[in-house]
Amino acid sequence: SGSSLSSGAMAAPLLLSDTAARQIAGNSDLPLLFQKGLNDAKKRVATSEKTGIDVPAPKDPGGGYSHERHKVNGQIVYDAGYLYRLTGESHYRDHARDILLRYAAMYPSLPLHPERKNQSPGRLFWQALNESVWLVYAIQGYNEVRDDLTAAERKQIEDGVFRPMAEFLSTGSPEMFRKIHNHATWAAAGVGMTGYVLGDERYSDWAIDGLDGDGSSGFLAQLDQLFSPDGYYTEGPYYQRYALLPFVVFAQAIDANEPDRKIFERRDGIVAKAIAATVAMTYEGKFFPVNDAIKEKGVDTSELLYGAALGYRLTGDPVYPAIARIQGETVMTGEGLALAKAAQTNAAMPTPQSMLLRDGPQGDQGGMAILGMGKGALAQTIVAKDTGQGMGHGHFDKLSIMLYDNGHEILTDYGAARFLNVPSKQGGRYLPENDSFAQQTVAHNAPVVNEESHFAGDWKEGQKHWPTMRYTRFSDRLNAVSATIDDAYPDAVLTRTSLQFRPGAEAEPILLDVVEVDTDSAQPVDLPFWFNGQVTNLPKSLSIRTDGLTPLGVKNGYQHIWNLGDGALADGTGRLTWLTGGRFYSLHTLAPPASKLALIRAGANDPEFNLRPEMGAMVRTRGSGKTRILTVLEPHGRYDPAAETTVASEPRIADLKTVRLDGALVVQMTTKAGGTIQAVIADNPSETVRHDLRHGKLRLQWNGPVALFDGTGKRIDQPDG
Amino acid sequence: SGSSLSSGAMAAPLLLSDTAARQIAGNSDLPLLFQKGLNDAKKRVATSEKTGIDVPAPKDPGGGYSHERHKVNGQIVYDAGYLYRLTGESHYRDHARDILLRYAAMYPSLPLHPERKNQSPGRLFWQALNESVWLVYAIQGYNEVRDDLTAAERKQIEDGVFRPMAEFLSTGSPEMFRKIHNHATWAAAGVGMTGYVLGDERYSDWAIDGLDGDGSSGFLAQLDQLFSPDGYYTEGPYYQRYALLPFVVFAQAIDANEPDRKIFERRDGIVAKAIAATVAMTYEGKFFPVNDAIKEKGVDTSELLYGAALGYRLTGDPVYPAIARIQGETVMTGEGLALAKAAQTNAAMPTPQSMLLRDGPQGDQGGMAILGMGKGALAQTIVAKDTGQGMGHGHFDKLSIMLYDNGHEILTDYGAARFLNVPSKQGGRYLPENDSFAQQTVAHNAPVVNEESHFAGDWKEGQKHWPTMRYTRFSDRLNAVSATIDDAYPDAVLTRTSLQFRPGAEAEPILLDVVEVDTDSAQPVDLPFWFNGQVTNLPKSLSIRTDGLTPLGVKNGYQHIWNLGDGALADGTGRLTWLTGGRFYSLHTLAPPASKLALIRAGANDPEFNLRPEMGAMVRTRGSGKTRILTVLEPHGRYDPAAETTVASEPRIADLKTVRLDGALVVQMTTKAGGTIQAVIADNPSETVRHDLRHGKLRLQWNGPVALFDGTGKRIDQPDG
Ligand SMILES: [Zn+2]
Ligand SMILES: [Zn+2]
Repeated sequence: SGSSLSSGAMAAPLLLSDTAARQIAGNSDLPLLFQKGLNDAKKRVATSEKTGIDVPAPKDPGGGYSHERHKVNGQIVYDAGYLYRLTGESHYRDHARDILLRYAAMYPSLPLHPERKNQSPGRLFWQALNESVWLVYAIQGYNEVRDDLTAAERKQIEDGVFRPMAEFLSTGSPEMFRKIHNHATWAAAGVGMTGYVLGDERYSDWAIDGLDGDGSSGFLAQLDQLFSPDGYYTEGPYYQRYALLPFVVFAQAIDANEPDRKIFERRDGIVAKAIAATVAMTYEGKFFPVNDAIKEKGVDTSELLYGAALGYRLTGDPVYPAIARIQGETVMTGEGLALAKAAQTNAAMPTPQSMLLRDGPQGDQGGMAILGMGKGALAQTIVAKDTGQGMGHGHFDKLSIMLYDNGHEILTDYGAARFLNVPSKQGGRYLPENDSFAQQTVAHNAPVVNEESHFAGDWKEGQKHWPTMRYTRFSDRLNAVSATIDDAYPDAVLTRTSLQFRPGAEAEPILLDVVEVDTDSAQPVDLPFWFNGQVTNLPKSLSIRTDGLTPLGVKNGYQHIWNLGDGALADGTGRLTWLTGGRFYSLHTLAPPASKLALIRAGANDPEFNLRPEMGAMVRTRGSGKTRILTVLEPHGRYDPAAETTVASEPRIADLKTVRLDGALVVQMTTKAGGTIQAVIADNPSETVRHDLRHGKLRLQWNGPVALFDGTGKRIDQPDG
Repeated sequence: SGSSLSSGAMAAPLLLSDTAARQIAGNSDLPLLFQKGLNDAKKRVATSEKTGIDVPAPKDPGGGYSHERHKVNGQIVYDAGYLYRLTGESHYRDHARDILLRYAAMYPSLPLHPERKNQSPGRLFWQALNESVWLVYAIQGYNEVRDDLTAAERKQIEDGVFRPMAEFLSTGSPEMFRKIHNHATWAAAGVGMTGYVLGDERYSDWAIDGLDGDGSSGFLAQLDQLFSPDGYYTEGPYYQRYALLPFVVFAQAIDANEPDRKIFERRDGIVAKAIAATVAMTYEGKFFPVNDAIKEKGVDTSELLYGAALGYRLTGDPVYPAIARIQGETVMTGEGLALAKAAQTNAAMPTPQSMLLRDGPQGDQGGMAILGMGKGALAQTIVAKDTGQGMGHGHFDKLSIMLYDNGHEILTDYGAARFLNVPSKQGGRYLPENDSFAQQTVAHNAPVVNEESHFAGDWKEGQKHWPTMRYTRFSDRLNAVSATIDDAYPDAVLTRTSLQFRPGAEAEPILLDVVEVDTDSAQPVDLPFWFNGQVTNLPKSLSIRTDGLTPLGVKNGYQHIWNLGDGALADGTGRLTWLTGGRFYSLHTLAPPASKLALIRAGANDPEFNLRPEMGAMVRTRGSGKTRILTVLEPHGRYDPAAETTVASEPRIADLKTVRLDGALVVQMTTKAGGTIQAVIADNPSETVRHDLRHGKLRLQWNGPVALFDGTGKRIDQPDG
């Protein structure tokens, strides 16, 4: 039998086209990142060939031997198939075939898995999800060797494993297969690709149009409902990078086999948008750690290899080669080759872009706003998390913000309390403190009323509500986002408006943040700012606890917070400066007159040291009617103890004042040098409304929700206007 | 007038030889690091030429305008002189000359500086030290232009500034000039080099042989007394990198002008040794932060540019090109050129070397032992700080240890409590917590008796005492250091023996640490281990304080420590595991039966947040007679939350036991897999004593203080024996 390279076109191209396969196989000078992916696959297969095939009877749950072994076997079939096609070495084909024949001999007689626990059990694995993933990999590997197997081998493998598995995961698990859920996407991808490879249209039609053929379930329905029109996945970026993979893989297979479906044009290019959104929700290559996120997770995750390759094919965006460099390898497809080539030159991470990623299938369930200002990958980035709840892994963090600057997290999000796969940390599961602290509102830079969490900490209640995006506005010198929610608490309306601005093209961007809480009755309002840094200056009025610490409260996360000390803010104003990564950050506050500032640290009631001892500052006031807490976060100066130089350790802003005019709030910031910056925030966010107000001797005129003026009334957020 | 390049040899070569100058000037393809140093100098001079010369009347103390301006002017004379010689561009010569003429016009009439405060005032600067530094730089620059000035200009400059300044700093400040102190070395270097340039042997003789010409003071005396025979400078590495500079510069000038003095052979090559010691006391390019050290300081400090260049010339050690890469530039001399060339290839930081750097002029005042094991720059490094006090910046940390592993600090030293040049942190001075915490014994991984600091916290008392080095022993699989001190406390003898070993060539190095405290009466003994990491496992017997924290004590640093919780160690044994930089570290303890373990954090009684919230574990016992606290620190496994893989989060060592045999302690470590490692520590440290002991069924035979055996009695620390 000839090598695959001489046997002509494959029956069903999935992710590796015949053209790409020839191009790669004939290339003696493959780009580094491509070669790395290829070499890793070769190593994996060599190990498998050496240790020999083992296809154990299904027995263990996740983590156990039989579970892990089946996972590896699926991967090896995939690797060996691709390698056969790209190298023509027949031992790769034989190894993939021999593994599949063993599965074919076992699978038909398998009952449901003995360790099944959930509603969607598998046969090979305890969960159908794992079985779908296995199928997605194995069918790709099989596809690459199929033409060079005998008819008898093909029949044995298809009748023994691929048909029964595809049918088990579709008609055999209809409830799971009909779900609009990421798990069903894996099933659709596996079943649909099996249809293409076996030439059985029933499978691919079920997968794409749903079991009932009416589009009420299946891949298209998932594509329409699981992502927002901007490509945001409701659980947040940490889960999005995982959810994305079957979408990317199956969409490529559909495009190759049924180009008339124009899958990449679906919903105005939702596949490309979902990939782009995943990548946009990162700083320094790490995902924004919203919801139950492991903070270390970034674009170098293997789940994003296909995404980066396809994203580059669909958009040519230079962010993908930059990501490929961080990933260090790519997939064994034509898209991977093109990406690896592009990554050889000019692959610097671009400047973060400002954007709003709306949440919800129709894009009307809040959203995540990203405000970026400055040059290069380390430019300041503010994230306003005004999305929906994001299901059970969602946090109670409505209107929370994060801020990154100069390559560091400055205003932080705790992420999840979990040590993945560390047995001594409750077997690597989510820790109790994930629920009791990390998910709670007070663990976030979000307004807390009456020391309670949003939706009383009930995520199912949270699913029913989301903030309303009032507006976002992006320009070179002024970015803004404003959102409001009236049902996070029974009798409070929360509104937050965050401006990122720079008074000049070369100035450091500054955050101006206005939180408003409208309550019927007098209730405590807390606004934490969790920060990463060491305090260099604090208000004199604070009484720091030097000889004893006690928790800040007894529930809703407060029990996990040490009160390091607090004190009244004189006239509601105060300034805290800290140092992070060689730069100073000053947080100026302007709160109601009777407000206090508390310094806090996570770690109380934490007998196993499950929490990191993160620090925060909390503005505490008692609201009745409209309570407004205004803060300005100003980066400044440089601290270089190695070079023994320190510059501008004191902030430039000396004074912060607000004035209510008719229909607008004027925030007046006076610098030490005597200059004035005036930010105006209109009550009516409409872009078309013209504002024309007298402020002292000045006349302030602008359109839309926000604008910036200097002390003479000259507009300064429009360099060309 | 012709360019310097055509004017023949200079009268007095200082650091730039005529050959080197020609080689550099004629080189159109200078190596990157050399070009960088050159370009930086060009930028500085261009700025000075543009802004114009200003030579203000001396007025301000350190930090003020006139102070900073004179410093810059000295640097510019230096830069411009070198650049004239290397480029031949006459504007450089003119700029240096014009600045010097201004100083010549002013200097003769200057009284002592108005802001003088200490015993050694200057005229241009408030301290003579700054004046010496100015002279060291300016005389070098002058030397490079001198031949191409008119005789009148030369006379004016020499009579106006160089002669009066050299005489002021020598015969005019005899008390300072006669000191055996780093400040006097700067004066000697300035005065001596002035002698060479002006051809006045009196100056260079004063500088080298002392004012009295008998060698009782001056450079040679300083060279003989300020460094130990191994090149250790008593204040520790942070100060050594600063003290080193005038030694390096003046030694090079002496070598160029008086080769017969064989200055580089003095004390068996003490200059090269001092440079090598400075570089050896680093990990990942940062200096070991002993004594009042700023932890960020590393080999990239500008003070070490000359040192690295000369070190490479004298030894050819490949560590210097690696350091040059970290420095990013080099000096404008032949040595700099050679170093920059070498740095273009093969400049990886080498594996840390094990060594003992003895302290004291005769090398008999304790020392710093460095134990390195493993490959590459990230290999495990243990530092035993058994040195003398190190004067007023010394810490009360006798027998303290530090441990680095995998590129991270694991057992840490706090360093200094200071924010250099940050006005809000007490003007950048040492903070009160430097004295009340950072210098105290309890802030170190050192034994504390009766909750008091060594020498009752009196550094002048500390100057009179030092540990006795019992032995050091270095081999591929077993490094050891043992030291003892009987006068850190009135009635306690402290002995510490630290072994770094690996049971196999590929195994991770493990620390075995034995602290013995001999007291007459029953006294509390505490042994802290300050670590950098997050706890993943702690002894069940500890009662962690969940709802309130109080300080551990009221004085001697204890008042700055929060007691996070404590509890009895069952039979004196316990195990704590933490995670640092993706690796697990388990600290196994074996202490007397009634011992406790406390978890602690710095930060109590710290109203301005001057302290970092570092964490520690403290073994607490009550000693009477001989108290022994044995600990094993075992690195293991890997935690990679991004890749979602965790391996070996549990330590291998399951059980720790000691047996006293005749004249030796046997420490028996049993692994989970059932293997046994036996470390023997002989009471008599002599290398020539043969030990032959029965231990159960085994016969253990070895020479010298320490050895390692497996469970069958086979020696395992000698791979070839
Ligand atoms: Zn969160
Ligand atoms: Zn210290």
